[in-house]
Amino acid sequence: MTTQVIILNGGSSSGKSGIVRCLQEVLPDPWLAFGCDSLVDAMPAKMQASDAGIVFAADGTVNVGPDFMALQAAWVEGVVAMAQAGARIIIDDVFLGGAGSQQRWQKALGGLTVLWVGVRCDSAVAAGREIARGDRVQGMAASQAEVVHEGVSYDLEVDTTHTESLVCARTISAHVD
Amino acid sequence: MTTQVIILNGGSSSGKSGIVRCLQEVLPDPWLAFGCDSLVDAMPAKMQASDAGIVFAADGTVNVGPDFMALQAAWVEGVVAMAQAGARIIIDDVFLGGAGSQQRWQKALGGLTVLWVGVRCDSAVAAGREIARGDRVQGMAASQAEVVHEGVSYDLEVDTTHTESLVCARTISAHVD
Amino acid sequence: MTTQVIILNGGSSSGKSGIVRCLQEVLPDPWLAFGCDSLVDAMPAKMQASDAGIVFAADGTVNVGPDFMALQAAWVEGVVAMAQAGARIIIDDVFLGGAGSQQRWQKALGGLTVLWVGVRCDSAVAAGREIARGDRVQGMAASQAEVVHEGVSYDLEVDTTHTESLVCARTISAHVD
Amino acid sequence: MTTQVIILNGGSSSGKSGIVRCLQEVLPDPWLAFGCDSLVDAMPAKMQASDAGIVFAADGTVNVGPDFMALQAAWVEGVVAMAQAGARIIIDDVFLGGAGSQQRWQKALGGLTVLWVGVRCDSAVAAGREIARGDRVQGMAASQAEVVHEGVSYDLEVDTTHTESLVCARTISAHVD
Repeated sequence: MTTQVIILNGGSSSGKSGIVRCLQEVLPDPWLAFGCDSLVDAMPAKMQASDAGIVFAADGTVNVGPDFMALQAAWVEGVVAMAQAGARIIIDDVFLGGAGSQQRWQKALGGLTVLWVGVRCDSAVAAGREIARGDRVQGMAASQAEVVHEGVSYDLEVDTTHTESLVCARTISAHVD
Repeated sequence: MTTQVIILNGGSSSGKSGIVRCLQEVLPDPWLAFGCDSLVDAMPAKMQASDAGIVFAADGTVNVGPDFMALQAAWVEGVVAMAQAGARIIIDDVFLGGAGSQQRWQKALGGLTVLWVGVRCDSAVAAGREIARGDRVQGMAASQAEVVHEGVSYDLEVDTTHTESLVCARTISAHVD
Repeated sequence: MTTQVIILNGGSSSGKSGIVRCLQEVLPDPWLAFGCDSLVDAMPAKMQASDAGIVFAADGTVNVGPDFMALQAAWVEGVVAMAQAGARIIIDDVFLGGAGSQQRWQKALGGLTVLWVGVRCDSAVAAGREIARGDRVQGMAASQAEVVHEGVSYDLEVDTTHTESLVCARTISAHVD
Repeated sequence: MTTQVIILNGGSSSGKSGIVRCLQEVLPDPWLAFGCDSLVDAMPAKMQASDAGIVFAADGTVNVGPDFMALQAAWVEGVVAMAQAGARIIIDDVFLGGAGSQQRWQKALGGLTVLWVGVRCDSAVAAGREIARGDRVQGMAASQAEVVHEGVSYDLEVDTTHTESLVCARTISAHVD
């Protein structure tokens, strides 16, 4: 069965974006890539100043409210519809709700053929890469490193602690049918 | 009937992005915004080096090939599905195919309530704003200013030549039900 | 006397950056451009989380402390040295201290030939452009629009309220010897 | 003797920028950071479309002409002047001319106390990271990996092939007086 959707789940600064760009390079077909960052960019700037939206706290924790959840749910439906319309899709997400986040995706994905990929990175290493990226707010990497994987099932896991993005992408692409 | 989708069509540097951000600010509900730029960002980088993808020529002309068209068609379906799922959506697009581009959207949008907005800007003014943005390739603004509107029907037109983005956004928002 | 340095002073969202890029395009020689934004980018990220550094408050006010002032003073000396070494330089700055800010530049610039340019923009229009840019924090444009010009002397003033960046740049370039 | 300037030399995608941001975090004093990228940003956009300026070729090679060299020389003088004025400075550069590039810096730096740092990265690994960054033009990493170090003398070398940016930064900071 042809893989229609690849979903990468991992904490902030675990290296998802780099893997996505490498996947888009090494996979022979053109794949569309969407993720948390592009979703937040699509939302009004004022959503980031509202408890009903998304709040990035000074300690690196992230809280989302009902307005964010509603738009996210519709966005998930739309991304699934793109795959149903024939586009091959790569998603990178941060399952802040662990297994519950995965179940929401599973329900929306219906009968599509999905490759579930866990992107692990040692918490201290991810925290260091957060500094190297120059983000002013620190703490997201450490606070998300473990919790996003709790109760989540994968077809495949990669670990960027000691493995380059391109190597991880090649491992993943070998599992794409 | 509640407006579900706002579609802004205009040439490069006509001011669409600024209007979109102002709309997201002035409209009371949170609206999701997508457009050509976010679509190109979602595609593999190598699509920009291929005649089958999208080629930004040195003279400012833009050519798209079959791979681009196929992904774009699926993306349109997905964006429409987000609106059907209840999210309110703002699209900014460049109808390189004029009326033909509008027909493709109309066919995909089905029974949704759409507000069609033309974003005009004097060609010379848009070309100046292209320079002010610091784009290395110049010519897109001038080559697209008129052609994208050919044969297209609007509910409303705004002209950024002498009118600020925020004022245009308020005019548009007054037409949103 | 050949103009060696052009200094543009104006509030946030008054249109300085667009004018700078247009100046770099229309002036026949290549000019180097520096400004507040590139200075802040050159500083450690942690300077933006410290009262000794620079604090962008939620109401749009900006406060700078002694660490920021010390690095800024050395940076000014360096930019002046580039001009003394033969590079033609465009600076865009926000004179938060009004006349006092200008005096600090004058003292550092010594015998160099400088064109002082005030960049005005109606406060409400600048506030609207701040929204159009999508900045999450609003209020800088309004709070800086007038105060940065207090007691400052110019060779030339431009007003972006009703005049395009490229037109302002051509006006300025006509005063460059 | 207090270290006044840290110069990092390495090829494209060798990891200089990440190390610089980590250095700015771990060093107790605030240090200003400048480099090739900020220099190119300071130049007119049209310099990138001129043989007299800087040309990024499709195969990843970079060629600079006399206009670029002249502005760069003045910029070097200015950065040195910032250090002489008391700011602590981190430079990241790509010594396309190897030992000759170092000599130009040495001549300008005069009596300042400088820490020379080589940033190495295995060529294939750097090429992979170039893909992970999503640069459309590939080849810079591979073409620069070795040549920029030819004939250059260092106080210290770090290798990002298997070592994180933050760890490299801590190694470097231990050599800062």
